[in-house]
Amino acid sequence: MLQTITWTGQAARLLDQTKLPTETIYVDITSETQMWDAIKRLVVRGAPAIGVAAAFGVYLGVRDWPDDDQIGFGKRLEEVCRYLATSRPTAVNLFWAIERIQRVASTIRSAEIEPAQVVRTTKQRILDEALAMLEEDNRICRSIGEHGVKLLAPLASSQGPINLLTHCNAGGLATVRYGTALAPVYVGAEQGLKFHVFADETRPLLQGSRITAFELQQNGIPVTVICDNMAATVMSEGKVAAVIVGTDRVAANGDVANKIGTLGVAILARHYNIPFYVAAPTSSIDLSLPTGKQIPIEQRDAREVTEGMGRTTAPPAAQVYNPAFDVTPANLVTAIITEHGVAVAPYEASLKDMCQRKD
Amino acid sequence: MLQTITWTGQAARLLDQTKLPTETIYVDITSETQMWDAIKRLVVRGAPAIGVAAAFGVYLGVRDWPDDDQIGFGKRLEEVCRYLATSRPTAVNLFWAIERIQRVASTIRSAEIEPAQVVRTTKQRILDEALAMLEEDNRICRSIGEHGVKLLAPLASSQGPINLLTHCNAGGLATVRYGTALAPVYVGAEQGLKFHVFADETRPLLQGSRITAFELQQNGIPVTVICDNMAATVMSEGKVAAVIVGTDRVAANGDVANKIGTLGVAILARHYNIPFYVAAPTSSIDLSLPTGKQIPIEQRDAREVTEGMGRTTAPPAAQVYNPAFDVTPANLVTAIITEHGVAVAPYEASLKDMCQRKD
Repeated sequence: MLQTITWTGQAARLLDQTKLPTETIYVDITSETQMWDAIKRLVVRGAPAIGVAAAFGVYLGVRDWPDDDQIGFGKRLEEVCRYLATSRPTAVNLFWAIERIQRVASTIRSAEIEPAQVVRTTKQRILDEALAMLEEDNRICRSIGEHGVKLLAPLASSQGPINLLTHCNAGGLATVRYGTALAPVYVGAEQGLKFHVFADETRPLLQGSRITAFELQQNGIPVTVICDNMAATVMSEGKVAAVIVGTDRVAANGDVANKIGTLGVAILARHYNIPFYVAAPTSSIDLSLPTGKQIPIEQRDAREVTEGMGRTTAPPAAQVYNPAFDVTPANLVTAIITEHGVAVAPYEASLKDMCQRKD
Repeated sequence: MLQTITWTGQAARLLDQTKLPTETIYVDITSETQMWDAIKRLVVRGAPAIGVAAAFGVYLGVRDWPDDDQIGFGKRLEEVCRYLATSRPTAVNLFWAIERIQRVASTIRSAEIEPAQVVRTTKQRILDEALAMLEEDNRICRSIGEHGVKLLAPLASSQGPINLLTHCNAGGLATVRYGTALAPVYVGAEQGLKFHVFADETRPLLQGSRITAFELQQNGIPVTVICDNMAATVMSEGKVAAVIVGTDRVAANGDVANKIGTLGVAILARHYNIPFYVAAPTSSIDLSLPTGKQIPIEQRDAREVTEGMGRTTAPPAAQVYNPAFDVTPANLVTAIITEHGVAVAPYEASLKDMCQRKD
């Protein structure tokens, strides 16, 4: 089974997702600069996985700091956290994970520990927290799967599988395991439900055809790859019972940032009266932002569009617009599936409720 | 200036559009089998250009037939026409052009010509008809441009250019010159109007980024390439004043077959209250089909999706759905711009009217 992120004891081992589906190569990340680069280049991607990766990145950035330099350590920790936060702007899990690590570190400094042990203990707690996040991600995704499958199971019919459409990859390879959007599929399959998934290829970086199709195939779930612009056709042909996607950040009002193209899919789903579900761990919900308008949208290199797949596909010097994400307004979202339950409109109240639940 | 199709005296010279934008290579087509292959492989593409290419293909298929074998010639002509009609199924211009050539040929046979000259004369008239279609296409596209610009000019503002979005290529390289969807842009630019065009790249074969962006750039029209899945975003940002596309076949009720992805764009345009215009020579209007449901949709090789750009972008043996066209229902079409004027709903009446006009 493919492992998105593991801790070797010395390094964070990442599956290099830029090489899928033709090569499965693991890289050992041993410094914060390597982790920054891995996040930036999408070696590791998917909001939940980015969060965990960043947590290990913080540890890697401070682990060699001299144990006898407390003040310097505090400064270094701050510097590493700031640095890793610049790797990608949209997925809130990145900031959530870094803040969580910072919180752990600050708690320690104010506790009763022998002064000579503070730095060493802090390093250990940071690593422990990163490892805890790795473990938690499994449980959270599993729980999203269990809540999600309750929404999808009623779509089953005697005629055949439950036909879903997904965009980008919010599967096991976007998380530690299970995934968010695909978790209900994996959990449902364990329960004997049959699924078939249309995977939008998801230009420009093709996470849908390269990664979603790959992991579904590996897990025995029937999948059909389509170009992004074919989603309307398969919906018009009655082949899609529900859309399910992940998210990089949900605003307090339920607006959802996700991979570019998600907004279009949501509008099409509305046009054809197809439910549009978003799977989101509560770590992706950013109650500090009132609406999606405040979510920063990453702009990426034009060459992803013009030379993305080994061939020049646009004239040289062509002007290109390449936002990596878009924002789907809450009114197009049927429900948001979290690890604590399913949130529906009005989202201001339901998302706040989900974020407060501990179960 | 690039020439989609020219007649050299001995051959139909085609710009090989599969090589754009990195190479501009012309190929001389000297037989009907070469022409079939050129149409099938999209060396020449775009409904109007396919029609003209097929007309030359018919001539190339009969020109070497012995002048003294009238009966054999009739059989051969029939065979060549049937054969060329199998190259691609969706663009009605292909069948329209072939039928037009057949009509010319049958008229000649019943006219008063010295028996020994019938075959030779028929060949010449077929060539003349193909050349006439080449000329006509120029005039028709120019006329579409003039009618279309009347719809687009009111969108001009003092703030900047008229922002359009187009899908696939219905420009000069889809016709002999000017294009259909882009004709209003070229005609408007001559009149001093400023335009900016968002070109959907148009997966899987990227006619938008490879061809539309290329020809607009060559013609000095500002263009921005986007992935297909970014159309919703640019519309949501208020950056699109109108959508304009071409068509491969319009049914009697106004349903429009065009490059896969057009349906999605039309739904998005409706969602954002943006006019959605279709440019169509009357040769693309098929009054024999009551609705778009009867339009045959070409399915193409899965490898266009999985290996289309020089790199394997989906797992081996991935299931793929690759329809080359979709059908946009008439209720999403704001107007259909023909060489005889602008048709609006109810399309049954207005399209019939356009097809009967001679001006």
